[in-house]
Amino acid sequence: MDRRIDETASAGNARIVLRRRPGGLPTANDFALEQAPVPEPRDGEALVRTLLVSVDPAMRHWVNQGSGYAEPVATGDVMRSFGVGEVVRSRTAEYAPGDIVLGMTGWQEWATLGAAGVLGAVDPRLGPLSTALGVLGINGLTAYVGMLDICRPKAGETAVVSTAAGAVGSAAGQLAAVRGARVIGLAGSAEKCRLSVEEFGFDACIDYRAVADLGAALDMHCPEGIDVFFDSVGGAQLDAVLQRIQVGARIAICGTIGLPVGEIGEGPRIERTLLVKRALIQGFLVTDHLDRRAAMVDELATYVRAGTLRYREDVATSLTDAPRALERLLAGENAGKSIVRVAEPPEGVLVTAG
Amino acid sequence: MDRRIDETASAGNARIVLRRRPGGLPTANDFALEQAPVPEPRDGEALVRTLLVSVDPAMRHWVNQGSGYAEPVATGDVMRSFGVGEVVRSRTAEYAPGDIVLGMTGWQEWATLGAAGVLGAVDPRLGPLSTALGVLGINGLTAYVGMLDICRPKAGETAVVSTAAGAVGSAAGQLAAVRGARVIGLAGSAEKCRLSVEEFGFDACIDYRAVADLGAALDMHCPEGIDVFFDSVGGAQLDAVLQRIQVGARIAICGTIGLPVGEIGEGPRIERTLLVKRALIQGFLVTDHLDRRAAMVDELATYVRAGTLRYREDVATSLTDAPRALERLLAGENAGKSIVRVAEPPEGVLVTAG
Repeated sequence: MDRRIDETASAGNARIVLRRRPGGLPTANDFALEQAPVPEPRDGEALVRTLLVSVDPAMRHWVNQGSGYAEPVATGDVMRSFGVGEVVRSRTAEYAPGDIVLGMTGWQEWATLGAAGVLGAVDPRLGPLSTALGVLGINGLTAYVGMLDICRPKAGETAVVSTAAGAVGSAAGQLAAVRGARVIGLAGSAEKCRLSVEEFGFDACIDYRAVADLGAALDMHCPEGIDVFFDSVGGAQLDAVLQRIQVGARIAICGTIGLPVGEIGEGPRIERTLLVKRALIQGFLVTDHLDRRAAMVDELATYVRAGTLRYREDVATSLTDAPRALERLLAGENAGKSIVRVAEPPEGVLVTAG
Repeated sequence: MDRRIDETASAGNARIVLRRRPGGLPTANDFALEQAPVPEPRDGEALVRTLLVSVDPAMRHWVNQGSGYAEPVATGDVMRSFGVGEVVRSRTAEYAPGDIVLGMTGWQEWATLGAAGVLGAVDPRLGPLSTALGVLGINGLTAYVGMLDICRPKAGETAVVSTAAGAVGSAAGQLAAVRGARVIGLAGSAEKCRLSVEEFGFDACIDYRAVADLGAALDMHCPEGIDVFFDSVGGAQLDAVLQRIQVGARIAICGTIGLPVGEIGEGPRIERTLLVKRALIQGFLVTDHLDRRAAMVDELATYVRAGTLRYREDVATSLTDAPRALERLLAGENAGKSIVRVAEPPEGVLVTAG
């Protein structure tokens, strides 16, 4: 047990705030630790003791201006994040003390969450609580919506998945395999490629940093063209895939981490290719689909139990580690879903698999 | 009745062949009139007397190399086209003499069509035969698939339609209006804009050649952004619309007539926009959807009968006019669906509305 965290909690609400806008990729120095009183829930809110918080690629947008679909985090405000926590007091009929919930806790020990801040209940029997942030949480749900709803791979098709070893990509690739597709990953290191193939069962994985010609590598691994692309990167990877799509291809845009922040840039025009290939490109945001969360989590949990949907976690053990965990994630140094433990769980509840 | 055509027919099979590849846009000089014997149907084929043939924007691709989804027409071959004809002899169980069919007749008086060449039966009771090439044919079906299947406009949404006065665009816009959307057209002349609004009931139409700033014009007519775009043009029009899409927008790519033949070119990258707006772009080709033709035609015919789906035709009266009709179409000089009459219909059958 991390005593320091517990002591901090007893002294109030330790929280990580955004100190300044990084402009580009955030580093640990863009954040500061702060003490505040434990907040009081208002009518309709629950007071939640944060157990785990998430570290996600989208945070690079949240800390900068003009992120598009989410307002930026104001400087001086608690860093926005998904988290899992235990309801301690409740002024809403929806949640009772003792309930475990997934919500927008932020990087802090205590959060007051209203209806908009709670994404749903977490059933600890489905797996360690950390899975509610990863394979059975936003990451797994993102993979579900992008791969199963938008890409709809069929047996015998070829699916390509970017950030193949990442929390979302690894799940997306495995879901394509569950549907009978051949799955080719794209990842940024030999180790990530090894993980994709050995841990996550991809048929092959291309180290896009190591190959001289990404197109030629795709040609080799996708001799019949590409039917499905689950893309979290954009830019050159998307361009190379678009040149090789099959008739009827489906491309889900889950992220654009390969593009510089705040710039649209230029690229090959897509309309002729989409027309000739009768292909679809669709951007999505998992939070638009959370009305179906319970059913999707149940389905994902069956795959986890069957061993066809595996996951890895990279767990930091203190709230103060969160900024550095984000820096490592954005540098591609994490080895699995990045999670930060904030407090000890209720008795008998497993927090992480490790 | 055009006696010259009948005499030609009695002498054999007059046909228009592709004389040479135009490279860019075809002109009448790229085609030649030729006489050939009336062909003999083989087993599984029907001999069809062509009554009407169609002139379509896609022909600029068919006559050039590298058109993508369709093999180019070989030089010396009969020009490919949709047509409506009467079965005169049949060596297939599917069609009997006297049946009227829609098929790939080509620009010729007589065609032998197998299963792949016939797109379906034409019911003359639904309207003049010419509608089977236009509003109840490939054009109307294209509008149906793009607007109703892909774009799915809802009441209160804003739909933008390019080539608004054209055979496809005018139908697409009217289908959006049937679903309760506000419809803004894009067209290349004041006269076409007038037609779109006065004849086809668009709420407004932007003359993209006359406005200094297409984006500002779109802003004025679409103050809440654009939910649906039915695009036959691509290029700058698509770019301007993409900058103004609403969350959840749907864009159907029906053609790319605004792009130079054979060049992909560069444009603003689309992945960030699609992600932030959770938007969809899908290319389609109506011929992938002809298994549902009968049901779609029936639905379109109900709109025509109700007066909510109007159409115009630009009819040439002799097969030899077809190349010049194509030249006029590609120059934007046609006033409605471009059709060429090839022969007189069976007694009691209306060929065109005019």
